Amino acid sequence: MNHALVGVGKNINIVVEEMPDISVPGFLVNTTSAGIKVPDRKDMAVIYSDKPAVVAGVFTQNQIQAAPVKLTKHRVKSGVAQAILINSGNANACTGRQGEKDAQEMAYLLAKGLEIPEQLVLVCSTGVIGQPLPMGKIKTGIKTLISDLHTTGWEEAAQAIMTTDTFPKLVYKKGEIDGVPFSLLGIAKGAGMIMPNMATMLAFFITDLAISPAILQPLFKKIIAQTFNRILVDGDTSTNDTALILANGYAQNSVLHSVHPIFKECLFEVATELAKLIVKDGEGASKFISIKVVGAKSVKDAEKVASTIAGSLLVKTALYGGDPNWGRIMAAIGRSGINIKPEKIDIFFGEICLVKNGLGKNQKMEKEVKKYLKNKELLLTINLNSGGESVMWYTCDLTPEYIKINAQYRT
Amino acid sequence: MNHALVGVGKNINIVVEEMPDISVPGFLVNTTSAGIKVPDRKDMAVIYSDKPAVVAGVFTQNQIQAAPVKLTKHRVKSGVAQAILINSGNANACTGRQGEKDAQEMAYLLAKGLEIPEQLVLVCSTGVIGQPLPMGKIKTGIKTLISDLHTTGWEEAAQAIMTTDTFPKLVYKKGEIDGVPFSLLGIAKGAGMIMPNMATMLAFFITDLAISPAILQPLFKKIIAQTFNRILVDGDTSTNDTALILANGYAQNSVLHSVHPIFKECLFEVATELAKLIVKDGEGASKFISIKVVGAKSVKDAEKVASTIAGSLLVKTALYGGDPNWGRIMAAIGRSGINIKPEKIDIFFGEICLVKNGLGKNQKMEKEVKKYLKNKELLLTINLNSGGESVMWYTCDLTPEYIKINAQYRT
Repeated sequence: MNHALVGVGKNINIVVEEMPDISVPGFLVNTTSAGIKVPDRKDMAVIYSDKPAVVAGVFTQNQIQAAPVKLTKHRVKSGVAQAILINSGNANACTGRQGEKDAQEMAYLLAKGLEIPEQLVLVCSTGVIGQPLPMGKIKTGIKTLISDLHTTGWEEAAQAIMTTDTFPKLVYKKGEIDGVPFSLLGIAKGAGMIMPNMATMLAFFITDLAISPAILQPLFKKIIAQTFNRILVDGDTSTNDTALILANGYAQNSVLHSVHPIFKECLFEVATELAKLIVKDGEGASKFISIKVVGAKSVKDAEKVASTIAGSLLVKTALYGGDPNWGRIMAAIGRSGINIKPEKIDIFFGEICLVKNGLGKNQKMEKEVKKYLKNKELLLTINLNSGGESVMWYTCDLTPEYIKINAQYRT
Repeated sequence: MNHALVGVGKNINIVVEEMPDISVPGFLVNTTSAGIKVPDRKDMAVIYSDKPAVVAGVFTQNQIQAAPVKLTKHRVKSGVAQAILINSGNANACTGRQGEKDAQEMAYLLAKGLEIPEQLVLVCSTGVIGQPLPMGKIKTGIKTLISDLHTTGWEEAAQAIMTTDTFPKLVYKKGEIDGVPFSLLGIAKGAGMIMPNMATMLAFFITDLAISPAILQPLFKKIIAQTFNRILVDGDTSTNDTALILANGYAQNSVLHSVHPIFKECLFEVATELAKLIVKDGEGASKFISIKVVGAKSVKDAEKVASTIAGSLLVKTALYGGDPNWGRIMAAIGRSGINIKPEKIDIFFGEICLVKNGLGKNQKMEKEVKKYLKNKELLLTINLNSGGESVMWYTCDLTPEYIKINAQYRT
């Protein structure tokens, strides 16, 4: 598979591949600076398929849902969509009736301009909660977006959806199913409020494959659960999280009516890489941490242990400080809510086993782990030695920079 | 009731009352610097009743439990105890068989020195996890402790049990039941790892009342649940949390066989004030935050909302930054796991209503809230307008100092 990945991390090195002007057949894109929160910053994007596409979506499980989430969630149920309109800088959440009207009007104006049915337009917003959308700016923005659609410009779209993200996130892969080539492109934004149920996260996938809506929705939901719902920055979830996929059938493959392993793998890989990029760009993050829990009785048990460790402020600050404080990991496992046998637990930092049968190894080992902890990318492996299930979670450390960003986000 | 409160906050002002040399009849105390973690710092204390006392205890719910917790938990079941031996600097947790032997030996040596039955000695440790106790130093410390017991010196005991605490926590009250005067004295330590199920928290209460063990244990458990289990600093719980109360009957009241309202109120007040002191000394805390949830369908619902807000990093950093970011509070309510009606929610900052029926008020109000947020002590009130139950939780803001402390705790 060909592969392209965008992202320039300030703190954590990210492999950046030079991208040719990538595109996915039948899909067009455009971005603009509408000045929603600040001037001269890309803050609107449109993704457009030149024919109606099969759509699937996964949404925040927060009970406080933004107006665009409600609208888009409802429209995705039809299984068909043609355009996604996205703005950053304002979440249009906790904005009451007016917010709902605004979301509807955005969709209506885009539909009118593109001359497509209103019901085929989806809307996503991200940014500050509780402030009315500046509809004047949004209207002008929509006009600009419509005036100049291109087959390329996806990196700009990845940029336009950013809030406190420090780099755009784009992953692109090509594959072949039964001799028919296809492309899958994904863009995402994250930063704070990242935790299961997707937080302030937006992700958009487009592919030219022909896929039956009956299989796309359950597959997409499953893949999101295994990728975007296994990352954690700060434990807060948001009102706007949305992941959408459009499949327009331009590849002219015979429509997929069952889950094809190649497509499944491709979608899993693109989603995993985007999810990892979100963590690497976690607010203030200086280290990228993979948490592997093995030997669990069930996947659910493994999830609980991994998420508790990933969410522990004490573990995250210890890793920031380069301190092999395994006691904090043990304490997190102990409060994860599953039945554990402390005397069976092994903990590895990278390849180094620091805890065997629940007991710490010698000081010499700690010194080695300390050296290991100077790396920017870390792997913690917890073996519960109680079964055969495992999961992989991704998180980042907690730094003074996180607090600085979030103490100043609005003010 | 007379009342004394110790505590000198660096960041948050705390009322400090000059204390006479307080004491509780029949109780003796001593402290020493055994050099467990660092030299020349009080790190051991003994609390001794000169006759066997009724005892009750509440312990961590973390499944990884330190050796002293296991020992003390077991011994408290008898309902009688006479001495508590405490050390800071080392938690004796995740130390395996040797740790259990060490805890037992500590108790044995104290019992021998005091010439009391071994079963009447309880042991508590707090500090770093996973390192063996320096038993040589501990033994010398025990000898010193025994050599010079006093009726006064409780503030020194509050000091000796500290880890990253910045001030000792002591609350003392006097009361009268049916004409018989009594005293209640409590000391506690907290700092990090504070959250329900008591975290790295130690608390010790002594009273000269005569109380039946049958009523003391359930009452103590209930009071702890309403005080120490309603505070949250960072969401981590520890392996060593212990709260103990000794009642030695010196007051010569007729033994309490049912919950007496005066004693209940006195215990609740002392526990509440100690819990609040723990939050005020939360690692790096610069603001003390009370979270009042009212209008809930059930106490459980109210607890879920209060604890989710108290645990939200985004809320805590916003308050640190003085940002009236009510959207983050709404998002926290939305993910708290209870059924909510967003359009019914009101949010108050102090006396100022900033959110009415789920919608933000005007910019002028935000300015007033910004002024209010400059205070060191803040009250957030959330009215769910869905029922008649309410709770009060206490938490602190999250600051760069928290991260500094926890990135460097061991190293």
